[in-house]
Parts: sequence; C-alpha cells; structure tokens
Amino acid sequence: MTPAEHAELALLLEVASTPKPGNVDRRRDLENLRFEHFLAGAVGSGEGLRMAADGAPVGEAFERAVEGMSRQGGGNTQFGCLLVLVPLVKAAAENDGELTPAAVTRVVESTTVADAADFYHAFEHVDVAVDDPPADAPELDVRRGSEAVPALESRGLTLYDVMELSADRDGNAREWTGGFRRTFAAADAICDDDGPVPDRAARAFLDLLADEPDTLVTTQHGGDVAAAVSKWADDARGDEAAAERLAEALVAEGVNPGTTADITAAALFVALERGVRV
Amino acid sequence: MTPAEHAELALLLEVASTPKPGNVDRRRDLENLRFEHFLAGAVGSGEGLRMAADGAPVGEAFERAVEGMSRQGGGNTQFGCLLVLVPLVKAAAENDGELTPAAVTRVVESTTVADAADFYHAFEHVDVAVDDPPADAPELDVRRGSEAVPALESRGLTLYDVMELSADRDGNAREWTGGFRRTFAAADAICDDDGPVPDRAARAFLDLLADEPDTLVTTQHGGDVAAAVSKWADDARGDEAAAERLAEALVAEGVNPGTTADITAAALFVALERGVRV
Repeated sequence: MTPAEHAELALLLEVASTPKPGNVDRRRDLENLRFEHFLAGAVGSGEGLRMAADGAPVGEAFERAVEGMSRQGGGNTQFGCLLVLVPLVKAAAENDGELTPAAVTRVVESTTVADAADFYHAFEHVDVAVDDPPADAPELDVRRGSEAVPALESRGLTLYDVMELSADRDGNAREWTGGFRRTFAAADAICDDDGPVPDRAARAFLDLLADEPDTLVTTQHGGDVAAAVSKWADDARGDEAAAERLAEALVAEGVNPGTTADITAAALFVALERGVRV
Repeated sequence: MTPAEHAELALLLEVASTPKPGNVDRRRDLENLRFEHFLAGAVGSGEGLRMAADGAPVGEAFERAVEGMSRQGGGNTQFGCLLVLVPLVKAAAENDGELTPAAVTRVVESTTVADAADFYHAFEHVDVAVDDPPADAPELDVRRGSEAVPALESRGLTLYDVMELSADRDGNAREWTGGFRRTFAAADAICDDDGPVPDRAARAFLDLLADEPDTLVTTQHGGDVAAAVSKWADDARGDEAAAERLAEALVAEGVNPGTTADITAAALFVALERGVRV
C-alpha cells in the first residue's frame, strides 16, 4: 500500500479499535457523532492525503484533507488526526518508507507562512473544539479562520511557529514540536504487540491515555478531570472488563479523549509503514 | 464526493451495517475474516475504482481494484462487490451523476474480450468461492485464471458474454445481464427509508435476502439451505431481535449470504450517487 493508503487505513483502524474509552469505536457511537461519519471522513480525506504524498505543501494538503473529511453530517471527525498524519505521510513519501522522527521533523520545520494560512483556512470547513489563543495574541485565534491570516503574515509565523505557540496545551501541536515522540513510541508498541491490529491499537490508546492527560479533555473539562481520566485508564490497563466499563462511563459523561485518539491514528500509520499487516 | 469516493464509502458502509445475517458486520467477525480485513480491502480498492471513474475499461479497473483489495490477510473480502460496483462507477462518471439502469447496461454491453481476460486475471489475486463452470465449457472455469484466456479469445467472449453464461447461478452476473434490477430497487428502498444509513442498508439486506435465495449460499450449501435462509430472513423482517438471532445462527453455521451483501454495497453506491447523505 502507498503512504496515502496507509494513512486512510490508519483512520479507519483507529475508529474500529475498541474499547477506546470516550471515543467513537466499533462498539460505540456518541450522540450525533456516529461510526459512519468517521468512515465518510476517512474516505473524504483521501484526496488531501494523496496530495501530501505527492509533494504538496503540508498546509495545502491538510486543508484539502479537512475539506474532504467534513463532507458528512457528524461535524469534526478527524481534524486532529489529519494534523498529525499529513506531515508523517509527506515524510514517508519523501523518504521512500524510511519514516523517522528526524524525517518528519524536517518536514514540519520546513513549513511556511502559507502553510499556516492554509491551516487557518481549514478551520472554516468544520467546527473544532479548541482552547483560547495565547493571551498576548488574541488575533491568532484559530476560530477567526481566514481573518487571522493578515496577523500571521505580519508576524511572519510559519505553521511550525503556530504549533509552538500552542504546544503547551495541545497534544497534537506537541507532537509537531517534539519529534512526534508519543506517535513513534506508540507505533513501536503496536509493532511489538500481537494479535489483530485493532486490538493492539486499543491497548496503545489506553497506554497513551494513562501516560499523559488528554489535552482535549483538559480544554473541555479542565485539568482535574483529565488527570482523573488518565488515572482510570491506568487502572484499566490489562483488564478488558475495566476498559469496557471506562468506555461506557466516559461516553455517558461526554468526556472525549480525542487527542489520544489522534495520536493512536498516527501511531497506526507509522506501524503500517513499518510493516504491520492487517 | 466523487463516484470513486462514493464507491469506497459504499464498501465501508456495507460492512458496517448490522445486523447483516451471515456476513461480517460492525458487530460480528467470521473465523479468519475480520472487520479490519474489509477496511483494508475497501482502501486497497480505491485506485481501481478511480480508474473506472477516469474511463479505464471495466476489466482493467476491476482487476486493479481486486489486486488492491487483496492486500490484507483475510482473503476475499469484496470481489463480488467490486464486480457489481465497477460498471456502476464507470456509468456514474460517464453520465455525470445520471446513473440509470440504461446507462450501466450500456457500459456492461460494451465490454470486450480484453475485459473478459482481465476478469479472469483477477482470480489470480485471491481465492473466490465459485460454482463449477457450464458443463459444455470446462475450459472457461474461472479458477483457471489466465490459462482460460486463450479459450475466451478463440470463442470471442466479452465480459458481458461471460456474465450471461453464469447468470443462471450467480446473482452478481444476473445484475449485469438484467439491468442491475435488484441493485436499483434496493437503492430506492435505501433512499426512501429513514434513519442512519447503515441501519437502512441492514434493512435492505434483509429484504433482498428474503426476496431471493443467495447464490453464494446455493453454491456452498445447496438450494434447500439457500431457500431456508431466505424464509428465515423473511420471518425476521421488521423484528430486530429476530434479525440478530439469525445473524448469530448463520455465523455459527458458517452460512454466508455474500452475494446479497454484494448487491447491498452496490445499492448503497447508487443511493449515495442519488443524494443520500451520511
């Protein structure tokens, strides 16, 4: 399979993996956000993912992927996944399968102001749950979409710079600026694990969630809730019944560790690129 | 979405629809044939489906789709689906969304001996459960793969001709030669139905199975079993608990109404082309 196909399959395997507490998975829907919305989101992302593999700039490929993803009725399904996946796909294609932290870091460090502008454009295709912008930079609020582009340009901010500005409170931005550390570690775990790939991904998800509070949960429910969720995830490791109970509880409470799911999808992509087979 | 994207989404919605008695669905795997094999099969089919939309001959697009589909560990996931989908995708793309029985019939009636040869080549990518060839044409056994091509050529058989030869015992071939009658009827039912699309598809599947014996079940278990399965499906219509029981029973017995699933996928494609939204 090509890198773009692996990326699309990673999106599908991510949503199929179960239990993935608090997220849509093979066994659970959220209210108004159902499994089939993720299927359509993955298919719609395909064109943008192929653009990334064919050498398009990260921002342009990302915006196209998000636009295609948003052609379904559930709203935001895979915005965060795509933000992590697109540079990984570009790095894999450029390096002919040699996908390393150094290679993807070169890709993200090479992003431009135009990439940043396309990233902001992408917010116009779909509603994304985000934190407030830095207090000293309200004009960079992503919710302003294209209106923020003049501020980006006057400051000369690249997409990498934008990620640096939010790395302290967004786990996906932290992947960008930190060598995709958690993505590659979870990919190693999936490669070393046994059994059906979705089961491996569910275990990797639980490990990621136990190891660090989910930043989307922090944004939506505060740091105490995010810390508690990680503690529960830690308690559920290696205990399938406990993981299932946690999945039921988080869905019922509307607590969605979505950033952890994003990193799981990215890890699945890296694992597929490294030879894991479905 | 493009016709090729709708086709890939149709493959995914088909396998996600549940209950779909005797088939892999969102809630059930078969032994050695799991949900994720269908996800990978759908992604792998994408290139061939795009070729069909871009004007490639039916046989060439079909062989490419099957080759891509087979890059997973479950074996044959969507061979039959693709046989019905590829001409529909080509017809939709040629007619800019005006997808009618007449348009797809023009496509299949225009197939050539080269299309037939590519169809035979496709059997070399994956093991497909098929019936014996016509008694008077053992040299046309599809299990011979490329070795059967000289016989095709000496007889001047197009892919449409090959389908005519098996229309009496293969429901997918019968779609080809009969104006895709059941596909369009099930698409109408999906369009007229309400609720999430996978639920509509599961109801359409049960109606199709109740209305006519599944030809894959006939091939694998005989006509009496196929007739009994249709009777049970008829009894389960409109009764979700009964449909779930039937799904458990058929999976346990290893009875797989796969042709009915193929037509359900094709019907989902037509419904998406006609404006049904996920």
